[in-house]
Amino acid sequence: MAKKRVLILGGGFGGVYTAKALEKLRTDRDEFDIAIINKDNYFVYQPMLAEIISGHVGVFDTVSPLRSLLRKTDVIVRDVESIDLANKRVITSPGFKPVRSEYSYDYLVLALGNVTDFRGLTGLTQHALRFKYLSDALTLRNHVIRTLEEAAVESNPKLKEALLTFVVAGGGWSGVECVAEMNDFVRKVARKYRNVDPKQVRMVLLQSDTRILREMDESLALAAQDVMTKNGIEIRLQTRLAAATGDEAVLNTGERIPSKTLVSTVPGSPNPVIEALDLPKGTGRGGKSNHRVKVNLELQVESSDHIWAIGDCAEIPEPGDTTGKAFCPPTAQHAVREGELTAHNIVAAIRGGRPKQFAFKGLGQMGVFGHHSAVAQLSLGGAKINIKGYLAWLMWRGVYLMKLPGWDRQVRTLTAWFTASFLPTDTVQLTMLPQAGIVQEHYEPGQYVFDQGDLGDRLFIIIKGRAEVIKTANRVSKKLAELGEGQYFGEMALLREGMSTRMAAVRAVDQLDVLSVPRQDITALVDYIPALRDSFHDLIKKRDEENLGLPSIPMSAEILDANPEETIYLPRR
Amino acid sequence: MAKKRVLILGGGFGGVYTAKALEKLRTDRDEFDIAIINKDNYFVYQPMLAEIISGHVGVFDTVSPLRSLLRKTDVIVRDVESIDLANKRVITSPGFKPVRSEYSYDYLVLALGNVTDFRGLTGLTQHALRFKYLSDALTLRNHVIRTLEEAAVESNPKLKEALLTFVVAGGGWSGVECVAEMNDFVRKVARKYRNVDPKQVRMVLLQSDTRILREMDESLALAAQDVMTKNGIEIRLQTRLAAATGDEAVLNTGERIPSKTLVSTVPGSPNPVIEALDLPKGTGRGGKSNHRVKVNLELQVESSDHIWAIGDCAEIPEPGDTTGKAFCPPTAQHAVREGELTAHNIVAAIRGGRPKQFAFKGLGQMGVFGHHSAVAQLSLGGAKINIKGYLAWLMWRGVYLMKLPGWDRQVRTLTAWFTASFLPTDTVQLTMLPQAGIVQEHYEPGQYVFDQGDLGDRLFIIIKGRAEVIKTANRVSKKLAELGEGQYFGEMALLREGMSTRMAAVRAVDQLDVLSVPRQDITALVDYIPALRDSFHDLIKKRDEENLGLPSIPMSAEILDANPEETIYLPRR
Repeated sequence: MAKKRVLILGGGFGGVYTAKALEKLRTDRDEFDIAIINKDNYFVYQPMLAEIISGHVGVFDTVSPLRSLLRKTDVIVRDVESIDLANKRVITSPGFKPVRSEYSYDYLVLALGNVTDFRGLTGLTQHALRFKYLSDALTLRNHVIRTLEEAAVESNPKLKEALLTFVVAGGGWSGVECVAEMNDFVRKVARKYRNVDPKQVRMVLLQSDTRILREMDESLALAAQDVMTKNGIEIRLQTRLAAATGDEAVLNTGERIPSKTLVSTVPGSPNPVIEALDLPKGTGRGGKSNHRVKVNLELQVESSDHIWAIGDCAEIPEPGDTTGKAFCPPTAQHAVREGELTAHNIVAAIRGGRPKQFAFKGLGQMGVFGHHSAVAQLSLGGAKINIKGYLAWLMWRGVYLMKLPGWDRQVRTLTAWFTASFLPTDTVQLTMLPQAGIVQEHYEPGQYVFDQGDLGDRLFIIIKGRAEVIKTANRVSKKLAELGEGQYFGEMALLREGMSTRMAAVRAVDQLDVLSVPRQDITALVDYIPALRDSFHDLIKKRDEENLGLPSIPMSAEILDANPEETIYLPRR
Repeated sequence: MAKKRVLILGGGFGGVYTAKALEKLRTDRDEFDIAIINKDNYFVYQPMLAEIISGHVGVFDTVSPLRSLLRKTDVIVRDVESIDLANKRVITSPGFKPVRSEYSYDYLVLALGNVTDFRGLTGLTQHALRFKYLSDALTLRNHVIRTLEEAAVESNPKLKEALLTFVVAGGGWSGVECVAEMNDFVRKVARKYRNVDPKQVRMVLLQSDTRILREMDESLALAAQDVMTKNGIEIRLQTRLAAATGDEAVLNTGERIPSKTLVSTVPGSPNPVIEALDLPKGTGRGGKSNHRVKVNLELQVESSDHIWAIGDCAEIPEPGDTTGKAFCPPTAQHAVREGELTAHNIVAAIRGGRPKQFAFKGLGQMGVFGHHSAVAQLSLGGAKINIKGYLAWLMWRGVYLMKLPGWDRQVRTLTAWFTASFLPTDTVQLTMLPQAGIVQEHYEPGQYVFDQGDLGDRLFIIIKGRAEVIKTANRVSKKLAELGEGQYFGEMALLREGMSTRMAAVRAVDQLDVLSVPRQDITALVDYIPALRDSFHDLIKKRDEENLGLPSIPMSAEILDANPEETIYLPRR
């Protein structure tokens, strides 16, 4: 009999605990191989992700290398690109060498979780920070420190206000823990900044519902709201984020909150790889597919004898439910047990044993919302116990430390908690990211893309919407032109070395989306493709000449005089 | 009398110790203001930078936030762009808002150190890793872990060899510490990787001289060489790096070492801001300026009564030297004392006191070259003591821990050392960097830019050199075309969604430099600038037609048949 291969996709709670259980159940090395594919070489302990923002734990303390957790499993660090169900193989992204890799399987576990999805949310892709992966937590921490550094040297009071305003959208546990840790951190370290008054710090949580933490009992949620409000967090209920720009959070009420830090914890969508699979899916709002793989209580896809799906990418019936409408919640405690049961059922399939049915009903929920503050709602043998405050917080730490996989991580985390209790809070800002290349930006009506006098080394191309060019001289502002789709501005960036100042301001007329291109990128292209250079320069020249004759645009001699360094090019009609 | 302002440029040893000493010497808050400008908000403790590679200390353990070290100093986190000596002001880079900032001064301290400079070194800018800043150490660590992850899943033995070969250029302390820590780390964790044999790991140190560590006594340097060789490091003496590509280190002997990890620790050049200053400079090789600011023993620029220069960007006479040709070495122990003396002399200038002269002659040198191995060469009251081995290593740790500024950092570092001594070595690979945008790449003769069958989503434009297009069918390879400056290839990236496979290989004929453009960048430009789109498509079409008629290029029907997906466009002559 050929050796079987079990392939697990995804290294979250579901995938890792499936592999761990399989390693234990395998008595003979030749019985089957275990392999796991994950985009990172580590497992992130989600419950402690928020603590990285505040530095209560170090960046690497609570994440574990997969190879350390799973010593008998082949760990493949790649993105899953697609699954070929017919030929039982998985296609992954390339590594250093641009060649696609394939991995075949006999038994497949889908545990790909879900992904942050900002589609359909105006400006969020471009301007909102995410809070899901390890890199998100570190990015957010570095960003928050940067805003404090900038606030410390900023003389413009409006910009300083935006720098010291932090907005988090989403009142579930993810948003609550994120805003609470950020609040603790910012208020604590703001004192170190000589020109920053901690009272100027504004921390806002947006929640579309009438209260936060819908998944908890009302009394606990209200207690959490109380504590958070006392800690200085502004909770805005029945309020949603309508759009994001680089300078502000736009609410559904029309209100705009000037802020340089906007985090969105909107619920994720299933992984696109799962979406593309031709397997039975669950039903979401409006009768449409929710793109979760439908499985039975054995956690197996009904139509197949070798595919299981668990965790956030699966729709698992709630044990004991008779309505067919209740499903297991996407929590870590469920995913762990789903993984263990799946491992049992896979081994049963290999050995010809009897599969088990999922029967776990949840132990309750808990979470933190600030240092020394937590709530817990426990279900123990039918009894329901609610705990809040310091005791709940101690329990939270105890339980999650115990559940943290890897004894070395437990030591590290405990050490970090201990040292953090008496060492000053760290504010090192790690700057690793190079300057952004070609990016999209979103602006709301009336917002400035740039101001007269600003430095400029980027070219902007309008993708959608309109912008107006405004020149101010002798305290009189004048609209010089209105630009639309396909037009560009700020192109002096292409013509000169280094940075020059903008000779006019450009402001969004309606909702405006632009492509923002750094000088070095466009000059590299134009310099090295001779034909492109010629045609581009021809184009600029031609437009320039055309514009002079266009009656509809006030491109008078005065404007050309006023704008010797930067002319605004207008469309060919 | 107006309050004076002392402005310090640079937050390394020189700058930080000047500010610290000034804080101590200032008895009255109204006497003078102290401000420091640094590109990062932290001070990097260089002697322990290499330990970050191996994880003996955590990323943040040995770096200190400037605000914690300097509580009475204004910390300004910006890049210094230029210095206006005539108007006594410093111009810095913009923050969130693109506006240039200016800071005026009465007294100026230049402590900007030097910068990594790969100019004139073929391919290094594009393909060599640096080892100078905190981000370099973290980048290197993540890169090394990535090569191990890739080696674990790579089936091509040649690529696996390159993935497991690590090359460091430069046999000074920086290169020695870097290669030694990397060696310790890789050999230790390689065992965790199921398909990696630690014996396959190759670690190479390149040194142009006849021995490593020129700054140390020969006996100590040879002892270090011995230990390093025993630890598995290949030391290549009298060998220099001639060029770097993405796949190999090219030596001056013509030998090419296939490697995916190449670190260069070439000596830095002075900061360009210092280079641009009209101040007396030191004399380097060939009678040219070495771009270091010439100062007297009071560490002051001779021609001015309010500018001091210290550390790596200054040329300071060796105390007691009468030849005029000996200068203080660029070590931390010197920079610290230069900073303290500068602070004294600035206060003397403010109060009308008498300046002191620099008289420090150095205490000796020490460094590590592997866990538990170090050498120390001490000068104590005229006596010279050489120590090596475990004792030197203990001494190194003791001295550098004691000298580490900030008691909290000392606690953190000690804790890290302690826990690292019994916890398994961490291999979490932090992936924060997004896909590279438009970049340059260098290829050596015969090297493949891509192979037939590779995946492709980038367009390449030739900046310099020639490339040949090779198509293999039925085991017969045929040269289809030769491309030169200004020509591009791989442009199918522009025409299709997602990634397709390359229908032919492209190989460098001579030294080849290309601009490599990701599909999303060029399509964004072409999509959103309508005129560019038109002209670009016209261009592609026109070239296509022209090429068919070009007799010098074998663009026969066969080729067009063989290359249905990717045609190679040739120049307009």
